[in-house]
Amino acid sequence: MSTTTSGRDDASVRQFDISMPGFPESLPADVMFEQDIIRTIGKGFQARGFRPLDSACIQRQEVLVAGGAQYLDGGIPEFAFTVQEPPESYTGANFALRYDLTVPVSRFIAEHSGKLSFPLHVYQINKVWRAEQMPTATHWREFYQCDVDVIGQGELSLLYDAEIANALVGAFRNIGVDGFTVRISNRKVLAALLDSHGVRVHRARAIVQILDKGNRQPVEETVTQLAASGIPEHVAADLGRLVSSPTLSDARDLLKLRGADQVGIEELDTVIRAAHDLGVPEDHLVLDFSITRGHDYYTGTVFETFATGREHWGAIGAGGRYQDLLKHVNGSSYPGVGMSVGLARLMGLLREDGVRKQQGLRHEAVTVVRREDDDAQAVTGTVRRLREAGLSVQAVFDPVGAEKALSIATEAEVGFLVSLQDAGTATVRDMASGAERGVPVDGVADAIAELRRAD
Amino acid sequence: MSTTTSGRDDASVRQFDISMPGFPESLPADVMFEQDIIRTIGKGFQARGFRPLDSACIQRQEVLVAGGAQYLDGGIPEFAFTVQEPPESYTGANFALRYDLTVPVSRFIAEHSGKLSFPLHVYQINKVWRAEQMPTATHWREFYQCDVDVIGQGELSLLYDAEIANALVGAFRNIGVDGFTVRISNRKVLAALLDSHGVRVHRARAIVQILDKGNRQPVEETVTQLAASGIPEHVAADLGRLVSSPTLSDARDLLKLRGADQVGIEELDTVIRAAHDLGVPEDHLVLDFSITRGHDYYTGTVFETFATGREHWGAIGAGGRYQDLLKHVNGSSYPGVGMSVGLARLMGLLREDGVRKQQGLRHEAVTVVRREDDDAQAVTGTVRRLREAGLSVQAVFDPVGAEKALSIATEAEVGFLVSLQDAGTATVRDMASGAERGVPVDGVADAIAELRRAD
Repeated sequence: MSTTTSGRDDASVRQFDISMPGFPESLPADVMFEQDIIRTIGKGFQARGFRPLDSACIQRQEVLVAGGAQYLDGGIPEFAFTVQEPPESYTGANFALRYDLTVPVSRFIAEHSGKLSFPLHVYQINKVWRAEQMPTATHWREFYQCDVDVIGQGELSLLYDAEIANALVGAFRNIGVDGFTVRISNRKVLAALLDSHGVRVHRARAIVQILDKGNRQPVEETVTQLAASGIPEHVAADLGRLVSSPTLSDARDLLKLRGADQVGIEELDTVIRAAHDLGVPEDHLVLDFSITRGHDYYTGTVFETFATGREHWGAIGAGGRYQDLLKHVNGSSYPGVGMSVGLARLMGLLREDGVRKQQGLRHEAVTVVRREDDDAQAVTGTVRRLREAGLSVQAVFDPVGAEKALSIATEAEVGFLVSLQDAGTATVRDMASGAERGVPVDGVADAIAELRRAD
Repeated sequence: MSTTTSGRDDASVRQFDISMPGFPESLPADVMFEQDIIRTIGKGFQARGFRPLDSACIQRQEVLVAGGAQYLDGGIPEFAFTVQEPPESYTGANFALRYDLTVPVSRFIAEHSGKLSFPLHVYQINKVWRAEQMPTATHWREFYQCDVDVIGQGELSLLYDAEIANALVGAFRNIGVDGFTVRISNRKVLAALLDSHGVRVHRARAIVQILDKGNRQPVEETVTQLAASGIPEHVAADLGRLVSSPTLSDARDLLKLRGADQVGIEELDTVIRAAHDLGVPEDHLVLDFSITRGHDYYTGTVFETFATGREHWGAIGAGGRYQDLLKHVNGSSYPGVGMSVGLARLMGLLREDGVRKQQGLRHEAVTVVRREDDDAQAVTGTVRRLREAGLSVQAVFDPVGAEKALSIATEAEVGFLVSLQDAGTATVRDMASGAERGVPVDGVADAIAELRRAD
């Protein structure tokens, strides 16, 4: 459609920019890899009784605003893409594209709560849209999010917080990611300590923002920044002591000393024990009081997941308990706990680790080409027989030369390349070893079976 | 979020319509079913060497217009949703949501042709958006399309037309749909007959529209309508004779009689033979000269798929050969052949057939509940052991009564319900038979294994 490189001046050819920075469209091999990852994560969640949601991409602006009312200042957020209907079918509604998966869940519950069975175990792996000004390798304008949540009606046991951590750990391990930790804290601990000093946590965004960097800088730096932001020095020192507490009992001692409420500590204790009982390895779930999460809607447990040694990538998963996010739905309280994985970051990590490359050849997959424009039945018959033998077969029907055949099979990452010659013979190439053998056309399936056994 | 039914007048509760007619959001069990179907179709395509694309949902308006230039009168179509960036991140581009999956493919090829290996075997199962004025059970504003295409560079063998029919037949059979036919024709046959009478087919939209209803009405009615629309009677009679030709040789005789070109007949002969050679059953691919497809971009083979006895549902799949759709990309010719399945119609058929219901209980799946707020370790330990035994386990941690437990397990369609009592005992219920047995907590996995063997 663009002729900026072709140089033709055909009047029917339009000249315009087709680039779409921030809206990734990958080559098929990369899409297959990404869909494999999505499928693996979904299977892991389903094995824990979570079931998929598929929320509408287009939502009413009022729903997006109301669903986010707990953490937005009101109004449609500045990063939202709005959607216009054509005049012919104007319904009077104001639409926008969803920018997260949490708010559409609240709309779904508002409409269907009578038909839903609580606690609702749900996950969603779907695209969201954000109008980033400068898209980068980890900030896209269109990207997948992956949310897993348990939402209750009225009450919701703390054991679900452990189950969410467990679901995430399971999903990552199924993918083959092992060098990661889920860092856990509880906002009630921070709130209690601040409360003992007469500071309310939800009035203290600056504090949260400074603490949020706590795991990436020395604690002294955190204390200095807190004091510089106007926090009394003794409070800053206490916050420094809290975020550097290595164990629950250290934090408990500090809170006792200040006469502060212990409920956050007890909740953390319950959640961490239950996570271990559910099978989360001890080194995959680590206490870290510097984890606070920016969003105000978290009310208890908070999680962030980092790849070991690559903390500079930022969190590849984050979430927590939100007691009140959906409280206005139908006059009922819907406490929830969940985590969200940024799939783009996760894919980036996997690519850095060469996981994509390790996948390599698909040994059940074959490309069949023909060298000359010979009998159509020879090629369709071979394709059919190989498929009937259970192989995944890509059929290339236009006659191709040896070099082109090899490049097609390489790009398709198949285990075997079958080239049909004239006179009823075929060459079978083992793509891994490069070994080739000539066989009669009706012996191709057997030859591949033999090579697969030898691999 | 809506309190139209709750009657509260809390000032913080917003009053507005949350309904989204035409934007379906299904209950989790229906989403699981739909995703199973999508996965099955995708697996079938991958087994034939097709690989997934995942095109951007947001596209430039110029791309949508240019990609559709062959079949649109120009300009953004009247059913397109346009997308606005917020002022803060305005890039100057004009965006709209994709309304089909074909046009994004052309953009993708335009950008990446140097990195792609032709013939490109691709499929896409993704959402598209159309601003229907009156959404109905089969006309949504947001819905999945499912496209499978082979796109060549310069040349593209007719055998791919057979491979596309084969891929569709395979996908439908994998799903369990058997009562359907792919009806096939070739627009060159119609063009040749019209040409012999001095009528050009692409000037004859009215003819195509009348013929397109041909398989749902008696041929006499079609001839009458053609004559009424101003077609000379002898031409209308010939068209009637063509659309009611039961075999290729009948159509060949007619074209010979008029001295018309036979190439369309020869192409059909090649494609139908090759489809049978590839394994398409004879009764699943049926010659039907009334199939013409509305879009002008089809240049040869055309397909429509109907459910037997439910032709009134309309085509559940349609497509064909488009020689020129992408001809302006980088100055190269990219002939293609493909089909598109309307997933909403397919799902509707499956629901009508009760296929969803037949799926029934998942015998590898278990819901674990606890009756009283007893020891957390008893429940987490049971959940863990069952998962380690390979079962998919939904854990319900808030204490629930017997009735609620049953409704949760029923809704989740699990094979077994485990209720933990106090004093280390559990009740295992076989959801299929309703039989229950009491066992010690650490005997639950064995009890389920035994019941599964007995099922």
